[in-house]
Amino acid sequence: MGEFGLIAAMAARMEAAPGAIVGIGDDAAVLHVGDSRVVATTDLLVEGRHFRLDWSGPADIGIKAAARSLADVAAMGAVPEALLVGLGAPAGLPAAWAQDLASGLAGEARRAGAHVIGGDLSGAAQILLAVTALGTMAGREPVTRGGARPADVVAVAGRLGYSAAGLALLQAGLSGPAEVLAAHRRPQPLYDAGPEAVALGATSMIDVSDGLLQDLGHLAAASGVLIDVATAGLASGEPLVAAARALGLDPAATGHPGPLAWMLSGGEDHALAATFPPGAALPSRWAVIGRVREGRGVLLDGANYRGESGWQHFR
Amino acid sequence: MGEFGLIAAMAARMEAAPGAIVGIGDDAAVLHVGDSRVVATTDLLVEGRHFRLDWSGPADIGIKAAARSLADVAAMGAVPEALLVGLGAPAGLPAAWAQDLASGLAGEARRAGAHVIGGDLSGAAQILLAVTALGTMAGREPVTRGGARPADVVAVAGRLGYSAAGLALLQAGLSGPAEVLAAHRRPQPLYDAGPEAVALGATSMIDVSDGLLQDLGHLAAASGVLIDVATAGLASGEPLVAAARALGLDPAATGHPGPLAWMLSGGEDHALAATFPPGAALPSRWAVIGRVREGRGVLLDGANYRGESGWQHFR
Repeated sequence: MGEFGLIAAMAARMEAAPGAIVGIGDDAAVLHVGDSRVVATTDLLVEGRHFRLDWSGPADIGIKAAARSLADVAAMGAVPEALLVGLGAPAGLPAAWAQDLASGLAGEARRAGAHVIGGDLSGAAQILLAVTALGTMAGREPVTRGGARPADVVAVAGRLGYSAAGLALLQAGLSGPAEVLAAHRRPQPLYDAGPEAVALGATSMIDVSDGLLQDLGHLAAASGVLIDVATAGLASGEPLVAAARALGLDPAATGHPGPLAWMLSGGEDHALAATFPPGAALPSRWAVIGRVREGRGVLLDGANYRGESGWQHFR
Repeated sequence: MGEFGLIAAMAARMEAAPGAIVGIGDDAAVLHVGDSRVVATTDLLVEGRHFRLDWSGPADIGIKAAARSLADVAAMGAVPEALLVGLGAPAGLPAAWAQDLASGLAGEARRAGAHVIGGDLSGAAQILLAVTALGTMAGREPVTRGGARPADVVAVAGRLGYSAAGLALLQAGLSGPAEVLAAHRRPQPLYDAGPEAVALGATSMIDVSDGLLQDLGHLAAASGVLIDVATAGLASGEPLVAAARALGLDPAATGHPGPLAWMLSGGEDHALAATFPPGAALPSRWAVIGRVREGRGVLLDGANYRGESGWQHFR
């Protein structure tokens, strides 16, 4: 099956985008964004690095790749609208594999209210995905990493540490707890929490893709502030405790590996972290985990954290 | 040098985009497109497949990658505005190499009136680029592949066959003619010919990236018409004749390899091919090369072409 056959097979798994004036199959797509501003981000997902073929199926990989870029759009306070997908793969990629990948991409896009509007296909030494997500501000103002102010509260919407715990289970050859493995394979970002944060007055926001402390570090640096994270706000849920037990770890231990370390340094759950003015009335899915202060950097309970702070992309 | 250092080094070679409300360095970029419609396209460029490190330098590769996506935007009749660049590379990529790549990307973007507004970096087994180009219709209507009508004239703006001739020279170990080698390394699409075609009443348009006959085949299929290409309109320029002579070929031969075959089946010059109503007054840079008729497919001087019609992406 050549390029054009494979593209047709993948496109068959994708619904036409209602906002696409020109969709898949022309030189470029033309998208109605309903605002004179478009939000855009690109992420690479590489076999052996961001996923393993023996640990994730094609639909899982499609979901993960889509979520990674869609969450970046949400983290600007925007509404995801569309994906463009570049797929590199060795010749001989089974059409059924590519179709299941397409189903994963299209399904996660739909969960975010978006559609796949274009892409490219090329031979490559390993499977890789380059996913661009586009979104609209829908009349809102973008929330950058740079607006946190001293006295703001720091809050997180979405899971922390589940993906890292699932990875630890896979590395240990374990097949449960199922909820944690599923969270590793198929992150479920709360996309609508992004625009919600704008409505709640968020002063800054970031997608937790590399690890909470590392990503809060980027936010603190861009805002020129210090962020003090309180472990009291980071209650490990039952699934993380169960994952620790399955691995023979003390669930209450604060070192690495363990629930607290997974929550502090695990990425890929794509929770949204945002800062809000003091006194902001936050819905329950926004868990307050710290406070902004004068200064620079990130502290944990007022002290430096000694563990790994997160994922290194390029070493 | 880790990911963030490399990103900073590359960003230093790029000017801030005047249209970027949020540029490089946040979760996503926010671009003012000045129209409620955005044009978007993604292309992959893979080492050993789309370029060779011994035949092209990093600036050449950046130019080629940018041109490939920017030309797709122009082929919709749109004005390029921005690029997002995903770079995969083996660990140990020299910072100077990445910086020269960034210069190539930024320089070609500038030639098209666009800027780099974001990207991603990841380890990978080979060097590859995933370039997304965004553009604005600027109040125009998009020109698709699907609007060609019988009796329309077919015209091309830009070079045909130069990149293929340059590749043949490199494969033969030759170091000239310099103009042809330069055209292979650094395509120079006529981006402003895209919006110009809209003003001239173009009924359909495509970027010639895979080969004239193959790409006109896509256009004919989308429009439900037959396109008859006339070799009389495909005059080989002096550089192609010189390239043929350097390779010991008869410049007037019509078989493969040779100037006519390069023009018919060579891609990557990113000429724009468009159809116009009969009688349209075309500026001289639009060379009339054929006619639209009732029917299906592409003919050369009224007959089937027996050579290779163009590039296969995935075999």
